[in-house]
Amino acid sequence: MHILIIGGAGMVGRRLAERLASETRLDGKPVETMTLVDVVPPEAPANFTGKALLETADLSAPGEAEALVATRPDIIFHLAAIVSGEAELDFEKGYRINLDGTRYLFEAIRKAHEEDGYTPRVVFASSIAVFGAPLPYPIPDEFHTTPLTSYGTQKAISELLLSDYSRKGYFDGIGIRLPTICIRPGKPNKAASGFFSNILREPLKGEEAVLPVGDDVRHWHTSPRSAVGFLLHAATIDLDTVGPRRNLSMPGVSATVGEQIEALRRVAGDKAVALIRREPDPMIMKMVAGWAPGFEAKRSRDLGFTSESSFDEIIKAHIEDEMGGTL
Amino acid sequence: MHILIIGGAGMVGRRLAERLASETRLDGKPVETMTLVDVVPPEAPANFTGKALLETADLSAPGEAEALVATRPDIIFHLAAIVSGEAELDFEKGYRINLDGTRYLFEAIRKAHEEDGYTPRVVFASSIAVFGAPLPYPIPDEFHTTPLTSYGTQKAISELLLSDYSRKGYFDGIGIRLPTICIRPGKPNKAASGFFSNILREPLKGEEAVLPVGDDVRHWHTSPRSAVGFLLHAATIDLDTVGPRRNLSMPGVSATVGEQIEALRRVAGDKAVALIRREPDPMIMKMVAGWAPGFEAKRSRDLGFTSESSFDEIIKAHIEDEMGGTL
Repeated sequence: MHILIIGGAGMVGRRLAERLASETRLDGKPVETMTLVDVVPPEAPANFTGKALLETADLSAPGEAEALVATRPDIIFHLAAIVSGEAELDFEKGYRINLDGTRYLFEAIRKAHEEDGYTPRVVFASSIAVFGAPLPYPIPDEFHTTPLTSYGTQKAISELLLSDYSRKGYFDGIGIRLPTICIRPGKPNKAASGFFSNILREPLKGEEAVLPVGDDVRHWHTSPRSAVGFLLHAATIDLDTVGPRRNLSMPGVSATVGEQIEALRRVAGDKAVALIRREPDPMIMKMVAGWAPGFEAKRSRDLGFTSESSFDEIIKAHIEDEMGGTL
Repeated sequence: MHILIIGGAGMVGRRLAERLASETRLDGKPVETMTLVDVVPPEAPANFTGKALLETADLSAPGEAEALVATRPDIIFHLAAIVSGEAELDFEKGYRINLDGTRYLFEAIRKAHEEDGYTPRVVFASSIAVFGAPLPYPIPDEFHTTPLTSYGTQKAISELLLSDYSRKGYFDGIGIRLPTICIRPGKPNKAASGFFSNILREPLKGEEAVLPVGDDVRHWHTSPRSAVGFLLHAATIDLDTVGPRRNLSMPGVSATVGEQIEALRRVAGDKAVALIRREPDPMIMKMVAGWAPGFEAKRSRDLGFTSESSFDEIIKAHIEDEMGGTL
């Protein structure tokens, strides 16, 4: 089986490729070829026994989608996007990459389908940014998508396209709305949501972290490990059980910042918690106030998607996957 | 004031132009110029004392949107679309006209905004086709849009774009989801929804009409007169009271076919009802089963949008507006 990962150099894309390499099979079938494509050069996953094809390309450039589809991958993971902040600052770039890029991909598949019946599985990484305040807690599965960012708008539009192309039979699509990923590995970054990870990851290493919002801020999280699990489950689930509503809010952990901190205390002690420095940032506080507090996610749970059930588990997943299992 | 009506040769567009011509003012300001544009030649509204510009053009053709925006109309009514059945049969044409055409218009306005601060009011005619079965009754204002047609998908995407362009300040947009318009004037047509009007309009004239579904089918209706009223209210409403959620399900009358027929009996007697011939059509029955039974429409009513409150009123509006006031 040939698997294409668009956005294969990103944090989730890399982990997905590594997991596929280590499991060697998907849905019982051997993973013979993996194509990783991204705007920055992707790396081959470690210890992959199949063929890894690495490509540096921009999906929104002419001909790129057709070239990717020409190899007729069995499963296409579409994870490529420019992030929320950049899509907000550069309106044209956001629409070009996040909307046109997606549409070019879907159109290339449709044309291939009309040529020879090609009908791949397409797994699309959507986002809880398709929802915009005011939001209830928990957000029900049938709540409307009224994004308050261009990024969220582009994801919501891509979801609608995915459903329509799937309904017409051009491909077998499924969209999964990822929670905020926590603990995000790597260095602290400037994303407004970065602090959710920073206040755990840095103290776990004995380093200071800044908390720009109050302890009562509630948000929706899952681990990188669970995010990869969602993608793999979406790649193999029987879509007849999903029906025509192909975009699902994934399960996760709803927690306040205070609850995150108490989980850190239980796992790593008071010393770790003492490394969190409170520096309220009114701009970040205002942005975060509009974010999703949590979801019912009944449909996705009923369909077998699973996440951690507490923040203690999310922290332990990070220690196992990123810190060699010990503090 | 200069008003542009895109789709100005359509049933609703023509009536909107005629109403503006007869009222001569909108929001207290004189209507000096009306531009009507459509893919078929539009007609100047009768007795219009201002300047009527008539253009035959396709919004999805290169340069057309820019040309329309170059005249800097104060209010743009965007009513142009190919209908549901055609968008379903011709996938490419549907996306070209209903999605790309809308996007070209929005992009042309954005570029004009960046040039000289131009910020028109944009009133977009959306549709209850953005909703797809299974649907509750009544459908709440916060219900998700999961269309089951390409037409509904294109309308839902246009709604998202309208909200985002409005949020960014490129124009002042509002989208109104029109109920099925009943009684649709003119000849019986082949639209699957045609019978809702046919079974009233034809018997009111003493002619036979075919009813292809059962009496228990419930659907959501408003008169042509109310549809025009929605557009005019949307053109003048204070958008600060609407907030960032710019797409509204309009009010209407929820009625079963049986209730429609009883209203016909009250207005026009048993003789009219006897002209309805029952010819069940399994294909139409199946399509109609997925259609919206009715809406809460609380937000739009609270914002001052008004429709008829019974099917008797809808029939009387038709007699007044289309039959000279008497049977």
